[in-house]
Amino acid sequence: MKDANHIRHAIGVDFGGTFIKMALVNERGEVKARVKIPTKEATGQEAWLDAVGRGLEQLREKKTPGSGALSGMGVGVPGFVDFERGFIYDLANVPGWTNVHLAPRLEQRFGLHVRVDNDVNVMVLGECTYGAGRAYQHAVFVTLGTGVGGGIVINNQLFRGAHSMAGEIGHVSIRMDGVKSPQGRGGLEQYVGNRRIVERAVQALQQGRPSLILELAQGDLNATTVELIARAAQQGDALALEIFDFVADCLAAAFASVTYLIQPQAFIIGGGVAQSGAILFDPLRRHLAERLSPVFAERIVIKPAELGNDAGVIGAATLAMME
Amino acid sequence: MKDANHIRHAIGVDFGGTFIKMALVNERGEVKARVKIPTKEATGQEAWLDAVGRGLEQLREKKTPGSGALSGMGVGVPGFVDFERGFIYDLANVPGWTNVHLAPRLEQRFGLHVRVDNDVNVMVLGECTYGAGRAYQHAVFVTLGTGVGGGIVINNQLFRGAHSMAGEIGHVSIRMDGVKSPQGRGGLEQYVGNRRIVERAVQALQQGRPSLILELAQGDLNATTVELIARAAQQGDALALEIFDFVADCLAAAFASVTYLIQPQAFIIGGGVAQSGAILFDPLRRHLAERLSPVFAERIVIKPAELGNDAGVIGAATLAMME
Repeated sequence: MKDANHIRHAIGVDFGGTFIKMALVNERGEVKARVKIPTKEATGQEAWLDAVGRGLEQLREKKTPGSGALSGMGVGVPGFVDFERGFIYDLANVPGWTNVHLAPRLEQRFGLHVRVDNDVNVMVLGECTYGAGRAYQHAVFVTLGTGVGGGIVINNQLFRGAHSMAGEIGHVSIRMDGVKSPQGRGGLEQYVGNRRIVERAVQALQQGRPSLILELAQGDLNATTVELIARAAQQGDALALEIFDFVADCLAAAFASVTYLIQPQAFIIGGGVAQSGAILFDPLRRHLAERLSPVFAERIVIKPAELGNDAGVIGAATLAMME
Repeated sequence: MKDANHIRHAIGVDFGGTFIKMALVNERGEVKARVKIPTKEATGQEAWLDAVGRGLEQLREKKTPGSGALSGMGVGVPGFVDFERGFIYDLANVPGWTNVHLAPRLEQRFGLHVRVDNDVNVMVLGECTYGAGRAYQHAVFVTLGTGVGGGIVINNQLFRGAHSMAGEIGHVSIRMDGVKSPQGRGGLEQYVGNRRIVERAVQALQQGRPSLILELAQGDLNATTVELIARAAQQGDALALEIFDFVADCLAAAFASVTYLIQPQAFIIGGGVAQSGAILFDPLRRHLAERLSPVFAERIVIKPAELGNDAGVIGAATLAMME
């Protein structure tokens, strides 16, 4: 075991729409200290830099004395990024962040080595280095939420494609004549995004399908959530199980295409829906096997993500420790 | 320009179900001499090795005197191969080739460095090194025929995935509830394979759709071929154009998924149908643009393959010259 003095540390920053989460992370992927700042208290670039500066000081104080200088700071942001230049083109849902050279600004201000990347890429890196993907050289990470994001790891590195935009598994089409969106037709996200799942349940309930979901929502259709549908499914509710089976089959259809194309060793699934356990993973594995020839099916693994809400800060710190 | 004596040469072998094609190819990708052997005259491993040995002698005689030793021999075979070991698991449509250590046997017999790979991989390598893909580091190659094959080039190298089976674009699903096959549901090949295209035309003709196709087939539905449908389309026939538009849209649906996932710079299309020109490529480019958000659409190129029937022998020789 290495001496504590020789274990490297870095700061991971997970810039979300609700919170800016910061953590001191060591090279074993362990979170040693945390800071959480409400995003609305740091509106605009200057206020954001100030808030991150204060967070950095708090984290520095918690570092083991004598454990050496920080390896740097990694930042995951919710939007389009030019990773090489540490440049933000634009952020989704956070105003005031168009065309920002974030990495050089942070480096200048804090005297640290800084890397900036898209938040999903950062989570993928965290999961694939320290989480569910750590045993695989080739893995595909999928995060299920309002949207469906993803990332591809090839030879233990994030695969970015020709123009840094690869890994958009949420836009892989499962129905060429399916739901239209700005990204095309029949994209996976149009069927398994949180809102779509809730819509499916509400429609069935409105048509009078009896279900535990309505009871759990205390009769209020507007109170229907994915968590609630999952709870109903876990208690054996037919409608809820049917909805999870459909979600699993949609995921399987996309995963089959991904497998035929790039043949990863594993799919790692994160995000809210992924916490549903067997009601999602059992039908997902079964449907994927139905949708692949055996020679492909028997070589593929599907696993839930392991780092949970820490994937962002751990991945961001990993980014800074990588080179 | 290099002195002729310093230009490397290798032998490329394209092992097909109908012909074994061999060629002497130089490091510029130029075919300097050819030999063509009917596959049925070389049945079984021993007869095949004898035939290839005779072909090798003929090609050696045509080499410029003094141009040095051959760099080796590359072989493309129609089936599952372990590229690292030069081992054939099994060949489709060619009996007697199960579990064969082909590379070591050829090396021993002919005293040459030998590489063996799947025929589609070999074509991809040829097209991406010397053909339509030579300007791209990241490209996806698709070959349209009875089946739909493919290969992915990342950083100028064939991408093989976790177990050497990646690149099966023909099995990418475009309809999750679509045509069943041993490879799953709704695979691209089930819609744009030659037989499926002909079936579509024949069905419409049987239903009494007027079309130039019937005239070109001289009233014989069984004489309908893809080439003939293409000729009708080129003459403005409505049914034939409709069929090509459908084929183009199916390809576009799969290409959109591939683009969102791995974002290549280009798609290179080879095989019979790809020779149809504008009647395929125009609707294909239009449909792909409809199926991608502009930021992806404007960065993608679709081109026909350039090496035609020589892609196999050139690619096989390239394999031998690579290291």
